[in-house]
Amino acid sequence: MNTQQQAAPQAADDYASRDWWRTGIIDMRPGEIRYRGYAIEDLIGNVGFAQMIWLMLRGELPTAGQAGLLEAALMSAVDHGPQAPSIAIARMAATCGVGLNNAMASAVNVLGDVHGGAGEQAVALYHDAAARVDAGLAPADAAREALAGFVELHGKFVPGFGHRFHPRDPRAPRLLQLVDEAAAQGHVGGRHAQAARAIEAELARQKGRTIPMNIDGATAVIYAELGFPAPLARGLFCLSRSVGILAHAWEQTQQGGRNKGPIPRQYLPVYDGEPPRPVPGAG
Amino acid sequence: MNTQQQAAPQAADDYASRDWWRTGIIDMRPGEIRYRGYAIEDLIGNVGFAQMIWLMLRGELPTAGQAGLLEAALMSAVDHGPQAPSIAIARMAATCGVGLNNAMASAVNVLGDVHGGAGEQAVALYHDAAARVDAGLAPADAAREALAGFVELHGKFVPGFGHRFHPRDPRAPRLLQLVDEAAAQGHVGGRHAQAARAIEAELARQKGRTIPMNIDGATAVIYAELGFPAPLARGLFCLSRSVGILAHAWEQTQQGGRNKGPIPRQYLPVYDGEPPRPVPGAG
Amino acid sequence: MNTQQQAAPQAADDYASRDWWRTGIIDMRPGEIRYRGYAIEDLIGNVGFAQMIWLMLRGELPTAGQAGLLEAALMSAVDHGPQAPSIAIARMAATCGVGLNNAMASAVNVLGDVHGGAGEQAVALYHDAAARVDAGLAPADAAREALAGFVELHGKFVPGFGHRFHPRDPRAPRLLQLVDEAAAQGHVGGRHAQAARAIEAELARQKGRTIPMNIDGATAVIYAELGFPAPLARGLFCLSRSVGILAHAWEQTQQGGRNKGPIPRQYLPVYDGEPPRPVPGAG
Amino acid sequence: MNTQQQAAPQAADDYASRDWWRTGIIDMRPGEIRYRGYAIEDLIGNVGFAQMIWLMLRGELPTAGQAGLLEAALMSAVDHGPQAPSIAIARMAATCGVGLNNAMASAVNVLGDVHGGAGEQAVALYHDAAARVDAGLAPADAAREALAGFVELHGKFVPGFGHRFHPRDPRAPRLLQLVDEAAAQGHVGGRHAQAARAIEAELARQKGRTIPMNIDGATAVIYAELGFPAPLARGLFCLSRSVGILAHAWEQTQQGGRNKGPIPRQYLPVYDGEPPRPVPGAG
Repeated sequence: MNTQQQAAPQAADDYASRDWWRTGIIDMRPGEIRYRGYAIEDLIGNVGFAQMIWLMLRGELPTAGQAGLLEAALMSAVDHGPQAPSIAIARMAATCGVGLNNAMASAVNVLGDVHGGAGEQAVALYHDAAARVDAGLAPADAAREALAGFVELHGKFVPGFGHRFHPRDPRAPRLLQLVDEAAAQGHVGGRHAQAARAIEAELARQKGRTIPMNIDGATAVIYAELGFPAPLARGLFCLSRSVGILAHAWEQTQQGGRNKGPIPRQYLPVYDGEPPRPVPGAG
Repeated sequence: MNTQQQAAPQAADDYASRDWWRTGIIDMRPGEIRYRGYAIEDLIGNVGFAQMIWLMLRGELPTAGQAGLLEAALMSAVDHGPQAPSIAIARMAATCGVGLNNAMASAVNVLGDVHGGAGEQAVALYHDAAARVDAGLAPADAAREALAGFVELHGKFVPGFGHRFHPRDPRAPRLLQLVDEAAAQGHVGGRHAQAARAIEAELARQKGRTIPMNIDGATAVIYAELGFPAPLARGLFCLSRSVGILAHAWEQTQQGGRNKGPIPRQYLPVYDGEPPRPVPGAG
Repeated sequence: MNTQQQAAPQAADDYASRDWWRTGIIDMRPGEIRYRGYAIEDLIGNVGFAQMIWLMLRGELPTAGQAGLLEAALMSAVDHGPQAPSIAIARMAATCGVGLNNAMASAVNVLGDVHGGAGEQAVALYHDAAARVDAGLAPADAAREALAGFVELHGKFVPGFGHRFHPRDPRAPRLLQLVDEAAAQGHVGGRHAQAARAIEAELARQKGRTIPMNIDGATAVIYAELGFPAPLARGLFCLSRSVGILAHAWEQTQQGGRNKGPIPRQYLPVYDGEPPRPVPGAG
Repeated sequence: MNTQQQAAPQAADDYASRDWWRTGIIDMRPGEIRYRGYAIEDLIGNVGFAQMIWLMLRGELPTAGQAGLLEAALMSAVDHGPQAPSIAIARMAATCGVGLNNAMASAVNVLGDVHGGAGEQAVALYHDAAARVDAGLAPADAAREALAGFVELHGKFVPGFGHRFHPRDPRAPRLLQLVDEAAAQGHVGGRHAQAARAIEAELARQKGRTIPMNIDGATAVIYAELGFPAPLARGLFCLSRSVGILAHAWEQTQQGGRNKGPIPRQYLPVYDGEPPRPVPGAG
C-alpha cells in the first residue's frame, strides 16, 4: 500500500472549509453553550420543552400564549394506534434486535407526503386562502379559489378534512376552541382559523355533506396561526408522532416476541403470481 | 397468472390474528380516542407536551414536580452542534432531496450505543450504585463497586462523566441544582443524585483529577430519579435530540446547497490504498 | 386493567384480511419456496445475483445479453467516495455504536431526488425523447423538445449530463460502448442510446460547450434499453450504491474511532447567529 | 446578527483535517476513478456485480470459483415474503408517500441481531468450531464445545439451524452441495462446511431430533469458507435482502393503496389498558 496524499490546500480553501459548516442555532466554546444567543444554564429551569422547540426552530422565545398553543398541537397528534404504518413499523422493528433509536428512525422515516404531509399541505392551503382574503376576497370566495388551485395541483385528497375512521375527529373541535380563546386574548390573529372554517364550509357545499376538519387540519390551523412555514408543520408532526412511536416500540419490547411480522405465522399472504415452472436450462 | 389462495383460517386462528396487535396505550372507536383511558378532548388544553410524553411512556400523568424535571431534561439535550454526527447527518440529508422526516430518520438512527447510549448506561450505573446503598453499603463503597462492575462489563468509557470538548459541561450543575430543589420539596427521592455524586467522587479519586458529570450523566440522574427504566433514557434522548436535528435540517434547507458532503468539493479524502494496477485479463 | 375486545369480524372481513397481504413475487409452503414460479433449489447454482435482481423486479429471467448490461450498470455506480453524503453518513454512523444494517439504512435513505434521483429522471427524459422519435420526429428535434419539457418542469439541472468533479466521467463512454456492442448483437434496440446522444448534442449546442454524459446518464441508458420503468432506476442505483456504503462503513469500523463527526474536534463550525443575550425573566 | 468566526486553525490542524477522511477503497482525480487501484474503465465489462462486491469489501478480485459461491449466497437470501418484518415495512412504507430509497432504508434498518444477525453469529460459531478442530479436537468434540460456548453467551437460539416455517429449508442442502463441489475443485477448503455439519449433528444429538440447517446457516458456511469476517455476513445479507425489499416495495407501489397499515381498517387492535377515566382537574 502506498499513500498518495493530495497537495496542501490553499489558504483561501481553508476558509471555505471552515465556513462549510455554519450555523446560527448554537454557539459553543469550551465550557460554554449558547442557543440563539441564550446561555444554556440560563435556559434550564426557565424554559420548557415546547418553548425550547420554538426557540430552536424560530430563533426567539415564544410568548406564553404561543407556547400554550404549540403544546396543544404537539400533544394532540402523538398517536393514532398500531393501524398507522409508522406505529406498526416501530413495533415490528422493536422485535428485530435493533435499538429504540433505530425503531424510531424506521418509523419516523415513513411520515412522508401521504402519512405525514397533510399538515404541511393544509398550512399551505390556509396560507393561500388567507392571502386571498388579505387581497380583498370574501372568505368563502377565497376558500373556493384556494381549494380549486390545490385540487388542480395535488388531486382530490384535500388535506386536513375528513377521516376514514372517525366520522368526526374528536381532536379538531377542541383544538379549534383553544385557537378561538387564544385569538380572543390577542395571542394569535385568527385569520387561518377563519380560512380553515371557510374551506370546511366550501367542501360541505361541494360534496353535499360535511367533511369535518381532522387532526391534521386542526394542528395546521395552529401552526399557521403561530407563523410556522408549511414544511415545519411536517417537522413538528414528526416530533409529535415520535412520542407515540417510542411508546409503542417500548410497549412491544415489554410484550416480547422475536421478529414479529404484520400477521401471525400461520397466515400466508395470498399469492397471485406465476404457477410453478422449471428454470430453463437447470438440472 | 393463477391465484393460489390459502385455506381459510380456523376460528382459533382468527382470534390469534386479532390479538396479534394488542396495546394498552390507545383505545379507539369511531369518533373516540383515549390514551391510557383518558379521552383526548379532556387531555387537550389540560396537559402539555412533556406531560403527554410521560403519560404515553408511563401510563399515568406526572405530578407538576415530576413534569418540571422531565421538561428540564428534555430541553437541555436538544443539540450539541454540527460536529455531532447526528446533526451533521441531518444537515447533509437535507441537501439530498429527501423530506424533513427522512432527514430526521437518518439522524436519529445513529443515536446508538456510542452516540446516544450514555444516558441509558448511566441510569443503569446509578440504579446499581443506589441498590448497593439500599443493601447497606456506604455511598462511596457502593460507587466503587458499581463502577468496577461497569468497567469490567463495558470497558473504560464511563458514561455520563467527562467531556472531550467542555472542561466542565455547563448543563450538568444547573440540572443537578434542579434535582436538589425537587428533592427538597419531596418531588423525588434524591437517591440517584447521591449515587451519581459518589461516582463522580470515586472517579476523581481513581484518576487523580475531577472528571465532571456531563449532560448525559445529569439527565440520567433526572430519568433515574423519575423512575424511568434505563432503555427509556435513550428513547427520551432521541426525542430531545430530534429537536436539534429538525432545527439544523431546516436551517440547512434555508442555506440551500445540493448534495452537501462533509467537506467542500475542492478537498479530496486522503487515499492510502493500492497504487494503480491493471485488471487481470482486461483489454 | 380491563380487556375490551372488539366484536368478532365477519366472514367477509376475514377474506379481506387475508387478501391484505398479496404478492406475485414469492409463494411459500412449508419446505417449498418459489420466486415467480421457479423453485429456489432450481434457481440456486443456475442463476447469478444480477439475474436474480432482474427476476425479482421484472418477473422473468433475463437473457445473457440483458444480464451482462445489468451487471455493468450495477457494478459501475457502487461508489464515488466519502465526499458523497451517503458514503460520509455510512462512515459516521459506523462510529456511533449501531449495526452495519443501521449504517446502511441511514445512508441509503439520503439517495433522494438530488443525490439518487438523476438516473430516474434521465430514464424518463430518454423515454420522452425516444417516444417523440417513434412519433416521427428527427432525433435532434425530439431531443430539443424533450429537453425543453424537462427544464420547464424540473428546472435547469439536466440529470445525467455534466459533473462537478470530472471534466469527463470515465464511466460513461465505457458503458455506452457496452450498449453499442449489445445493440449490434441484437440484445437491446439502441433507441435510448440514440436519444441520450442526441440530448448530449443538443445540450452542447445550447451551452456552446460539451456537457458530457455522466454515470447517471449512462446507467440510465442501460436501464431504459433494458425496459426498466424510470422509478426502478433509482431503486437499482440504491442496490448498487449500497455496496459502496457497506464497504466504507466496514472500512471505517476497521479504522476505529468513536462518534466521528464531519470535522475534527478542534474545528468549530462558524457561528453567524445572535450574540450573547440574557433569558428574559431568568435568574 | 453578528459573525463570530473562530481563530484560523494551525498548520498542524490542517493536516489533521485532511486526514480526517481517509480511505483505501477509492482514489479519484478529475477524470479518473480507481477502486482498490483498478481503473473503473478497465473494470467495466470485465467484472460483474458480485465480483465488484467482493473487490470493494476485500480489496482484491475473487477467483471464478469464489465469485460463483458468493453469487449463490447472495441470490438465495433475497426474500422470504411479506411476513418478514423487513418486507412488510418496505411495502407499508411504499404507501406513505416516500421514495423507494426511503422504503428500502426503513426496511434494511431492521435487519438487526434478531432479524439479520443469524448469519453473522453462525459464521462466528463456525470459526470457533473450525479453530478447535485446527487445535486438534475431533469435529464432533469441537462442535460440542463451540455450541456450549455460544449458548452460554447468547442463549438458547442457535443461529443457522431450524426454521419456524419450513420443516426443512429447501435452500440449505442445495447451497451445501455447491460448497462441496467447490471444495472438491479446490476453490474453498471445506473446513467450515465440516464444522457446520458437525454442529447440526450435535444439535440433533442434544435435542433428539434433527434441527436442519437453514438459509442463514448455509450462507454462513459460504461466507466463512470464502474468508469473510463475521460482521460482513450481516452486511452481505443486507445487500441480498435489499433486492427483495426493493421488489416488494415496487410491487406494492403498483398495487396502489395509501397509508397501508398491517391490518385492514375494519380491524382494531385489541385494547388491554385502562378503562375510560376523567383527566384530574379537567373541565
